[in-house]
Amino acid sequence: MKYPNGIKRQKTTDNRIRYDNRGMNLESDLNDSNRYYIDKEIAFIYKKPTPIQITKVDFPSRNSAVIKEAFFKEPSTTDYNGIYQGKYIDFEAKETNNRTSFPLNNINKHQIKHIENVYNAHGICFLVVRFNKLNSTYILFAKDFLNFLKENKRKSIPVKYFEEYGYLIEEKYIPRLNYLKIIDEVLGGIENERC
Amino acid sequence: MKYPNGIKRQKTTDNRIRYDNRGMNLESDLNDSNRYYIDKEIAFIYKKPTPIQITKVDFPSRNSAVIKEAFFKEPSTTDYNGIYQGKYIDFEAKETNNRTSFPLNNINKHQIKHIENVYNAHGICFLVVRFNKLNSTYILFAKDFLNFLKENKRKSIPVKYFEEYGYLIEEKYIPRLNYLKIIDEVLGGIENERC
Repeated sequence: MKYPNGIKRQKTTDNRIRYDNRGMNLESDLNDSNRYYIDKEIAFIYKKPTPIQITKVDFPSRNSAVIKEAFFKEPSTTDYNGIYQGKYIDFEAKETNNRTSFPLNNINKHQIKHIENVYNAHGICFLVVRFNKLNSTYILFAKDFLNFLKENKRKSIPVKYFEEYGYLIEEKYIPRLNYLKIIDEVLGGIENERC
Repeated sequence: MKYPNGIKRQKTTDNRIRYDNRGMNLESDLNDSNRYYIDKEIAFIYKKPTPIQITKVDFPSRNSAVIKEAFFKEPSTTDYNGIYQGKYIDFEAKETNNRTSFPLNNINKHQIKHIENVYNAHGICFLVVRFNKLNSTYILFAKDFLNFLKENKRKSIPVKYFEEYGYLIEEKYIPRLNYLKIIDEVLGGIENERC
């Protein structure tokens, strides 16, 4: 497994005692981290709102509106995007309770196409995948994700593939998930062909 | 007024006959244009979903969900972002029926802060403002927008300011609003200090 400098392997036992009651959810961890980056003016990365189709709206008063019926739509892009060091950054975040692999039905074909587009357009693009039962959260860059899809017919990506090609994200108090540290290492280092 | 090379002034009479029944709405024009850019693999720019707060969801069956109550939230960022030529691009689009100025209450303070952040982070950031009654749609780059706010206490930006500092977007059949042409001119030209 590749570790960026200074990033140590986390314990991966299920019994690991958590430091606080946060971090139970990948989305809230990423939102906290992004809030930290914004406050420090390091990066401006946001989760996109959930795409919905609104079919009924009530206007109880002149200045208020209540949505009375709406449906979730399948996302056509990834969840997070923004700017870091002048560059476009784009990623999808998923967690799984599976211990051995990441099921690919978590990511739809429009999202895969989008990841391919951003990769080809020289954006920084990756997946953030958390294996809940292993207490491990990985970055897998678009290049390695797309390579896997090209070379495999499997319906899931084994944990071993993340161990070999992914980068383990350091978890700490603030920021919760310091994923930009990995981007720094990769962009600044000899591995910058990766993203 | 500055015109990028090859971009001609549109007629601005109210009686101008439209070529088709599209183009009556800035959002749909921009979405059509973005769809064109995506299809041609020129740029990958999307409108973010409308931010809402979901308060009630029904599950009529195992695999379906119906939102029964939700509220519109005030956006904290701009509507559109994406990647063009490897760079981060970010803009807000607004139309007004006002003939003489663009009312600033169209843009909230979180959005202004976001525009400032993206500008400082060296993203390509601007407003797209359509004056419906004048049949004119302008790009106003973040730098000029923020300068206006700094130097004026006015609650609206006069059309004259757009004429002087903005760029008129060419309107045609496909793409409907070729706004990236202006970005090309500005990025590639002597005026690239503007964004």
